[in-house]
Amino acid sequence: MPEAAVPDLGVSGATSTPAITSVTDAIAAAAHLAEGFAADAIADDHEGAAPFAQVAAFRSSGLVPALVPTDLGGGGLDWNAVLTAIRPIIRADGGLGQLFGYHFVNSWRVQLNANADVIDGQFRDLAAESLFWGGAGNPRDAGLALTPVEGGFTVSGRKFFATGAQVADRVTASGTRADTGEVLAIVIDATQPRVIHHDDWNNMGQRLSASGSVSFDNAFVPDANVLGPNEQSGPAYQPRGSLSILLYQLVMNHLHVGIAEGALADATDYARTKTRAWATSGVDSAVDDPYIRQIIGELTAQTRAADALTWRATDALVAAIDRGWDLTDAERGDAAIEIAAAKVFTTRTVLDVTAKAFELTGARATSTSAGFDRFWRNARTITLHDPVVYKAQEVGDWALTGAHPTPSAYS
Amino acid sequence: MPEAAVPDLGVSGATSTPAITSVTDAIAAAAHLAEGFAADAIADDHEGAAPFAQVAAFRSSGLVPALVPTDLGGGGLDWNAVLTAIRPIIRADGGLGQLFGYHFVNSWRVQLNANADVIDGQFRDLAAESLFWGGAGNPRDAGLALTPVEGGFTVSGRKFFATGAQVADRVTASGTRADTGEVLAIVIDATQPRVIHHDDWNNMGQRLSASGSVSFDNAFVPDANVLGPNEQSGPAYQPRGSLSILLYQLVMNHLHVGIAEGALADATDYARTKTRAWATSGVDSAVDDPYIRQIIGELTAQTRAADALTWRATDALVAAIDRGWDLTDAERGDAAIEIAAAKVFTTRTVLDVTAKAFELTGARATSTSAGFDRFWRNARTITLHDPVVYKAQEVGDWALTGAHPTPSAYS
Amino acid sequence: MPEAAVPDLGVSGATSTPAITSVTDAIAAAAHLAEGFAADAIADDHEGAAPFAQVAAFRSSGLVPALVPTDLGGGGLDWNAVLTAIRPIIRADGGLGQLFGYHFVNSWRVQLNANADVIDGQFRDLAAESLFWGGAGNPRDAGLALTPVEGGFTVSGRKFFATGAQVADRVTASGTRADTGEVLAIVIDATQPRVIHHDDWNNMGQRLSASGSVSFDNAFVPDANVLGPNEQSGPAYQPRGSLSILLYQLVMNHLHVGIAEGALADATDYARTKTRAWATSGVDSAVDDPYIRQIIGELTAQTRAADALTWRATDALVAAIDRGWDLTDAERGDAAIEIAAAKVFTTRTVLDVTAKAFELTGARATSTSAGFDRFWRNARTITLHDPVVYKAQEVGDWALTGAHPTPSAYS
Amino acid sequence: MPEAAVPDLGVSGATSTPAITSVTDAIAAAAHLAEGFAADAIADDHEGAAPFAQVAAFRSSGLVPALVPTDLGGGGLDWNAVLTAIRPIIRADGGLGQLFGYHFVNSWRVQLNANADVIDGQFRDLAAESLFWGGAGNPRDAGLALTPVEGGFTVSGRKFFATGAQVADRVTASGTRADTGEVLAIVIDATQPRVIHHDDWNNMGQRLSASGSVSFDNAFVPDANVLGPNEQSGPAYQPRGSLSILLYQLVMNHLHVGIAEGALADATDYARTKTRAWATSGVDSAVDDPYIRQIIGELTAQTRAADALTWRATDALVAAIDRGWDLTDAERGDAAIEIAAAKVFTTRTVLDVTAKAFELTGARATSTSAGFDRFWRNARTITLHDPVVYKAQEVGDWALTGAHPTPSAYS
Repeated sequence: MPEAAVPDLGVSGATSTPAITSVTDAIAAAAHLAEGFAADAIADDHEGAAPFAQVAAFRSSGLVPALVPTDLGGGGLDWNAVLTAIRPIIRADGGLGQLFGYHFVNSWRVQLNANADVIDGQFRDLAAESLFWGGAGNPRDAGLALTPVEGGFTVSGRKFFATGAQVADRVTASGTRADTGEVLAIVIDATQPRVIHHDDWNNMGQRLSASGSVSFDNAFVPDANVLGPNEQSGPAYQPRGSLSILLYQLVMNHLHVGIAEGALADATDYARTKTRAWATSGVDSAVDDPYIRQIIGELTAQTRAADALTWRATDALVAAIDRGWDLTDAERGDAAIEIAAAKVFTTRTVLDVTAKAFELTGARATSTSAGFDRFWRNARTITLHDPVVYKAQEVGDWALTGAHPTPSAYS
Repeated sequence: MPEAAVPDLGVSGATSTPAITSVTDAIAAAAHLAEGFAADAIADDHEGAAPFAQVAAFRSSGLVPALVPTDLGGGGLDWNAVLTAIRPIIRADGGLGQLFGYHFVNSWRVQLNANADVIDGQFRDLAAESLFWGGAGNPRDAGLALTPVEGGFTVSGRKFFATGAQVADRVTASGTRADTGEVLAIVIDATQPRVIHHDDWNNMGQRLSASGSVSFDNAFVPDANVLGPNEQSGPAYQPRGSLSILLYQLVMNHLHVGIAEGALADATDYARTKTRAWATSGVDSAVDDPYIRQIIGELTAQTRAADALTWRATDALVAAIDRGWDLTDAERGDAAIEIAAAKVFTTRTVLDVTAKAFELTGARATSTSAGFDRFWRNARTITLHDPVVYKAQEVGDWALTGAHPTPSAYS
Repeated sequence: MPEAAVPDLGVSGATSTPAITSVTDAIAAAAHLAEGFAADAIADDHEGAAPFAQVAAFRSSGLVPALVPTDLGGGGLDWNAVLTAIRPIIRADGGLGQLFGYHFVNSWRVQLNANADVIDGQFRDLAAESLFWGGAGNPRDAGLALTPVEGGFTVSGRKFFATGAQVADRVTASGTRADTGEVLAIVIDATQPRVIHHDDWNNMGQRLSASGSVSFDNAFVPDANVLGPNEQSGPAYQPRGSLSILLYQLVMNHLHVGIAEGALADATDYARTKTRAWATSGVDSAVDDPYIRQIIGELTAQTRAADALTWRATDALVAAIDRGWDLTDAERGDAAIEIAAAKVFTTRTVLDVTAKAFELTGARATSTSAGFDRFWRNARTITLHDPVVYKAQEVGDWALTGAHPTPSAYS
Repeated sequence: MPEAAVPDLGVSGATSTPAITSVTDAIAAAAHLAEGFAADAIADDHEGAAPFAQVAAFRSSGLVPALVPTDLGGGGLDWNAVLTAIRPIIRADGGLGQLFGYHFVNSWRVQLNANADVIDGQFRDLAAESLFWGGAGNPRDAGLALTPVEGGFTVSGRKFFATGAQVADRVTASGTRADTGEVLAIVIDATQPRVIHHDDWNNMGQRLSASGSVSFDNAFVPDANVLGPNEQSGPAYQPRGSLSILLYQLVMNHLHVGIAEGALADATDYARTKTRAWATSGVDSAVDDPYIRQIIGELTAQTRAADALTWRATDALVAAIDRGWDLTDAERGDAAIEIAAAKVFTTRTVLDVTAKAFELTGARATSTSAGFDRFWRNARTITLHDPVVYKAQEVGDWALTGAHPTPSAYS
């Protein structure tokens, strides 16, 4: 397994950071990371460079293997702990929040496959080397092609919106065997030369999410990286196999809420320290302005509602996960509806909050140096992942007929 | 203690229904009541008569003493159980939901006072006779006057918006001693002749909430009904003493969510069974209409968010209650903010849902016999209890400065 | 032409009120009517009786033949004058506004047909006797059946949502000849015994619009009432023939705006004279409350926008009318889009305004005697005439592809 | 009057472009400019350089003196013509729209002053040399200081948010005489060396509006540039003197509507040509997606309402202008209310439209190369000019009490 040496950029290279095994420590470590990210957030957003340094910091933090079982060298923490811990990172920078949140989904999801030995091996490596994971699964692109070779396969093709791939050690993907037509879930070593990172993520928001495109030019996938037949749909379908999709969707909810919280906290701080009382307001200080008081109150209320619903959805998904392979279609479907409903609401919330927060700050906060529009740009970008109105439709279908959404790449 | 005989109306008269002591039974009993109320809801709303029969049913159900400790003869249940149980009643009729929800606050709150023997006595009576409680505390009216007499006081004055008083056995109130100026918390036997129920609740919504005015014409208040000095403010102020206000506000959140749920369930059922597909929709059945699917989905999502936030606020208040007399101002304040934030959001939600739900049903659902506007009328009425924008302001003040709302009759 | 004598109810009976021929006089006469209607609006809404007396007043006012050409005995006024004049009536009572607005459409539209002599005759009668016109054209019911008889036809069938029919002298309708299948536009004498008015309009709003059902039991339609083949669609289709549909839709826009204006005016008056300053507002008078000032301002702004757009749509339709039979499909389509866009916006506006206006008034304004919910009930009822989302869709189709809506009973 | 030579930047330098004198020609010339600006809009927004080239193009177009009377060499056009003509420029780039719109206000407003000879001289120069005008009047900064010198004054001080000053030939301002305290309205030659342009406009939106700060370091103001005592308030107050403020506010309304129109047109075009149909939409093309059709329809409706109200406000202000010095306080006040109401609504509209338009395009439109977020950034920036809630408050005050806003720098 060839490994590119890119030590300066922090990609790959064995590290020996021990996994954090306590919730409290995980929260503290993530908060520490968030503090640093927040300090650089405006400049980094402006620059828009690939977040190699941030991934290096993440790999050094001991958080990377948080979800790996302790007997495989990991932190043994659960989704509640991880999602709690990364919230301050989301608040600091929505793009980094997505990057790190997706790492957990991309790596955790390998256990939804069939080849137990491969799964354990991947987890051991992840924990041992603090490997960072991206994904390359955008379903609206053409699929990847797998060609059997000695000791495994080669993989070819290109994927867009491959969040994290550029800065990752490993990439989850699936490919179709040219010979049999079988679709296999695979893990790709993203640091090998035949994996080409196009460094083409130059979008208006989520600029640190490393969501550009990646090409595979006969990249090698050893047997030890073949997770088994893709189980999301098809003959071998089992409800549990498609929980990864719900996890991505759940993480998006946390991103929405966290970005709203970040914007609101920044705007509140600005109102407290910088906004000048309006001439005809009749008050001396912006914090006494009745409308500023009202707007913060309303945005806070809405954000709390979004947060409460997101955690309820989290509980629903964790319960589904805890059912293991006994999970039924209906149970999966109920969790899907809870997450979809949350997404409808958190989407609206983060768009509202990041736009209206400016009404707490006034015109001076539009300076590029204040960087305050990044919250809205992040919000507007991540909320377009898939059209939220179709999530509303799924919830509506369920309410009307009891039907659950058909598992797919977005549901 | 004289007791008026009004058997036909179902008020008072000793009953021997044993208190329900299991959560499951409480939920089942309330669901049974709700079913009956739902069947009559449209007609009862139209009629708008005082809900004597419904209170009689409530008194017979075993639910009335649910919150009274078991050693005093009650059900020993907690607020979570009670609020869970009454939700279907709210869905069926928001006015009855208010009436029953307020019964629990009006009676439970006596324990926030000083005279332990009186408190226990009131609870024992409540449980023994399944007494129904109203309130007469509208702070925007003039206060009641107390005159010391042999064995207690007489009370005089008039209170508007006295939810439940007309159909109650007991009414909580407070009055000012003419001789000393001291404000005392009292319990008034609402069935005595010198308590005049004006039967003047004729409002556009919450028509079954019995929220008209009540006059006290030298009504007798025995010493056994004097709870002690009113502790909500003044020198004897303790944070716990004003938790009753937060309970009323919390119940309003549950009312908002329950009314929204009721409207949404009815409209969904209508859409499924009666709404005709629109001519240019390109579908054969209303349940396949893309906009109907979307609207139900969006309203469901928003209602779930309101529900999640309401239960979070419930948890916060229960935690404050559980702190007993050790409760600090800051702890009370945090619960107050959580409840206020919820109210900002649930208010908007119930207004949105009850108005937009008509878009699932079409024009025929505007018939008086469909009675579908009662949800909006209930929503618009209960949400005007106190101006919600000042709840937003309280949340905003806290977010800006950390200040908690000053305990008052509304905060 | 038999004519039932129903003097007590104010229906029919030749009157000799001369037609008003000046815009100024028309505005004054309508304002005078509106004043009277406003005084009774709350009681009349509560009662919900068919508006015979109001139609009688309308017939006596000289406004009824306003749109009839002067050479046929009418007022010779144009749509701008009529729509300006009736606005205060809409403000006073949306149901009466619909009733009178529809009278003008129902009668004016006869000129969109082929039989010139019949048209002139109808107009002459209208002007000579100040005849009031209703309609019986709900397209979602089964069609009416026409049977040829000596001197004309008989008509049979039932129509729901037949606004005005119950209190009308004449009803516009269309029916299908049993022998030939031809669809004819007809005028029915609504006062003949074989026209059965079911007096079944008992809906939550627009209670004075007389929009119940009407049955025709072999009612007689003389040749002098046969307007010609129905030209809205089919082989003889001409764009002008379907302008009546746009007129109904335009009147709905005026209804929406007028109801919003009425609610806002009432609420503002209430806030100025009755609303009490909130305890924690820091002001002595409700008119100084920052939130009341804001809400009125926002609702006023939105209502003005709706009004401006409605008059722009009026200009567009008047221009289309002025093109006569030269009107092209594209010209009709442009007017249809302008009216549809207005409807999308006025619908949202009247729902917003009539619901939020309560935030200016506080809880006491929910009393039945204040009758303030009638504005919302009227708004919610009239806005369900046809699903507004399909109007948005029509505008969207045009914006995306340039396609105009296909003329139909709603477009 | 010294004049700096900055030929490369396009500032100043006598030009001989004749003034456009026909509305049709003005509209065509502006449309031609808009086409060019649109082609560069994404790149120019990204770059954010001061718009010297665009001002040069504007000066060459013949549009600059459009409002100057023909007998002084100008185009003799009115505000309707100018505001109609510049709308496509606003659609292409909101910043340039602001720059050009403000030029007209900054120069037109000199006639609101007392010194008729000075006014005529300024207009003659403007027309003869096609001079571009900026402003330096931000009222929230300290005032400028005037020192009497031979032949005029020198002016010192710094002003922020000085839209257009950097690229202007002339700047309108007012300053306070150090000796007498009198406030004078003045015109400053912006090209003289003692006028320092800080080139510090680096804000998130309206990036081409040249709204940075300008310093005056004893810059010379000849007597021929002294317009007279500042008449906006103070003892010499006349209602007409403060119409300039309403003009700025009116132009903002046109900016709001134009930016919304630009975003909507771009998004519609994108949906038609690039957006892919969603997998579960059941349609083959995005233009057939029911939700895309709906959203465009709703945004179009709202934008049209904003446009209709803006033109109504334009009519109101033009009528006030046409009253000349006879204008009364009440007449000015009515125009102010109309403009304030429009601003409340156009503000909401442009924020809604520029945010929701992304729902027509999907995730790929978030690429920086698509530049689609510039509409929202422009909208969010310009709408913070002054807090819109205080405009709502002004409208509300008028609705409640009939009081008009006190003329000020924002009202």
